[in-house]
Amino acid sequence: MTGTMKAMVTMGHGGMDQMVWHEAWPRPAPGPGEVLIRVGACGLNNTDVNTRAGWYAKEVRGPTTSDPAPELHGDGTWGASGLGFPRIQGADVCGVVEAVGEGADAALIGRRVITDNWVRDPAAPMDMDRARYFGSEMDGGFAEYTVIPARNVAAVDSALSDAELATFSCSYTTAEGMLTRAGVVAGDVVLVTGASGGVGSALVQLAKRRGAVVVGMASGDKHAALAPLGADALLPRAPGDLRAALQQAIGRDSVTVVADIVGGPGFPQVIEALARGGRYTCSGAIAGPIVELDLRTFYLNDLTFTGSTIVPPHVFGDVVGYIERGEIRPLLAATWPLRELHAAQTAFLEKHHVGKIAVLP
Amino acid sequence: MTGTMKAMVTMGHGGMDQMVWHEAWPRPAPGPGEVLIRVGACGLNNTDVNTRAGWYAKEVRGPTTSDPAPELHGDGTWGASGLGFPRIQGADVCGVVEAVGEGADAALIGRRVITDNWVRDPAAPMDMDRARYFGSEMDGGFAEYTVIPARNVAAVDSALSDAELATFSCSYTTAEGMLTRAGVVAGDVVLVTGASGGVGSALVQLAKRRGAVVVGMASGDKHAALAPLGADALLPRAPGDLRAALQQAIGRDSVTVVADIVGGPGFPQVIEALARGGRYTCSGAIAGPIVELDLRTFYLNDLTFTGSTIVPPHVFGDVVGYIERGEIRPLLAATWPLRELHAAQTAFLEKHHVGKIAVLP
Repeated sequence: MTGTMKAMVTMGHGGMDQMVWHEAWPRPAPGPGEVLIRVGACGLNNTDVNTRAGWYAKEVRGPTTSDPAPELHGDGTWGASGLGFPRIQGADVCGVVEAVGEGADAALIGRRVITDNWVRDPAAPMDMDRARYFGSEMDGGFAEYTVIPARNVAAVDSALSDAELATFSCSYTTAEGMLTRAGVVAGDVVLVTGASGGVGSALVQLAKRRGAVVVGMASGDKHAALAPLGADALLPRAPGDLRAALQQAIGRDSVTVVADIVGGPGFPQVIEALARGGRYTCSGAIAGPIVELDLRTFYLNDLTFTGSTIVPPHVFGDVVGYIERGEIRPLLAATWPLRELHAAQTAFLEKHHVGKIAVLP
Repeated sequence: MTGTMKAMVTMGHGGMDQMVWHEAWPRPAPGPGEVLIRVGACGLNNTDVNTRAGWYAKEVRGPTTSDPAPELHGDGTWGASGLGFPRIQGADVCGVVEAVGEGADAALIGRRVITDNWVRDPAAPMDMDRARYFGSEMDGGFAEYTVIPARNVAAVDSALSDAELATFSCSYTTAEGMLTRAGVVAGDVVLVTGASGGVGSALVQLAKRRGAVVVGMASGDKHAALAPLGADALLPRAPGDLRAALQQAIGRDSVTVVADIVGGPGFPQVIEALARGGRYTCSGAIAGPIVELDLRTFYLNDLTFTGSTIVPPHVFGDVVGYIERGEIRPLLAATWPLRELHAAQTAFLEKHHVGKIAVLP
């Protein structure tokens, strides 16, 4: 298993020019317990941009953008270990297992799989200090081939295309992790910020799947495209008076859960929309990480906030089941050739799309 | 049960001059299910000041001070119903039951009791929209006599003085509610802000009682007075580098729980001191309610924040048991005559004391 492959390789922290196209990058070989995947498609995620631009570094206080903040000095990783370069990014792989390393199940060869992107220490699966993220602290899927531990893939029995299957893993495990942390159940009323994005559209579908009433917030021009996801109501991204807008849309002026991946200037408004005893869960802050919190609102209403990054190990398998049973549907906005990743990521950041973007080698 | 009594009566929202001394205020009579208490002592709490000054109103953004913020327009209550005036404030009563209303247990007559200050709807004890706070949405203990539902008092078998027993209810149920919400257990490392105050000193004792390692933050000149509470380490109120100070004090640079009643500018520092998976619990913000939160710290570390105001009904009885078994000790800083409440509350706000201040009718 030698030779070369085409790959988009990130050479260091910085702007989009750090991502360099290579026609003959070394092809990886599967080590013990690993599988070699011929990549069919790889979905795009905010973490690709954040990790490259160093957004996770404390010096950065602005929203997710392509260019690194000028004040950046930290290494901007989100895992415990720093990023090494060159690095092949890309977390959401769908592809076919072409070979397995020593000790890995040979029955996987020829199967179409998707990837569970938290590569954990099997002895301590919830210990993030020992966990790596596929495409972040280890090479990922912006290439013709990639390797990952065999326990991090699942064969998927589905009529969906590779690109459609590459929309699920990162967003849906993130979203399901948030809903799990917040304990969302039937009877909850869930407000989803950024409902047109990958995690946002996943939150809408997964909260509906749990039987909750779901209100999505997104730009008005995206509401038509979001309608098939089944939200009970869609509100603008920044309603002038959120409580009044809720009252008009669903007949009550508060929600029991806010699932947020936006943060930024809209944070105080969504917190004020929580009913007494309400829960806020968060797994991103694309509009800016530094927010203003009124502790009175927080403690006088007995609110609970749960941050969610590492997800319970069962979540990935749960999501695979939802896909196979047709309980969630892909929301594929566009596909691009892998070599046009710059253009694809530019479109991703412009946020004119609804759902996910994938690249094809 | 008619006649008059001496009382400090709050006439409206505003500064300390709103609290007016009356030598012949109407003495209350116990209604059905209520008891009449001859007040022996009444402890002072931040909520007395906050409610009078209207600090709970959204327009206010500064710390707890005696004077109302000039921008105040709201009514500043923290319960569901607005405050009515004139109002007798004061939540932490210790006194002797002198009479009972229809249907209340006559065996309480002659017993020394303390008050459970959340006056709940028995049909919905966790529904704060139906709960009132003693001394806030109903008359309290800054008077010779007060009435309260019989289910809101507990006879206490203790050698402590009335003033000492009047230090417990508000602070210790608040603190125990916070530790319950945060699920503090043996093995936790708990950082307590404002450890010299009523709730802070309660948090130190109650977290130690649960077997946690406890680090208190307080002005250096109060450390000697705090030592008997048993904290494993005491740090300054605003250490330059909290993580380094923790490392030096307890051999690790993070904690598993922050129990905060201070908020304000120190908030980001205590959040950054939380270990992955750490918990923050809050029941006050005397240094200012508006704080800056970095959502990355929150979600990338899988933190959980719990606001705590209404406490489970069992907490008051639990605290009474801790008192009777000597598991917690009072920290009585000073007593003042009730008629000198202005001076007592001035001393309370100057924060030169350690523990609690009580007034005696």
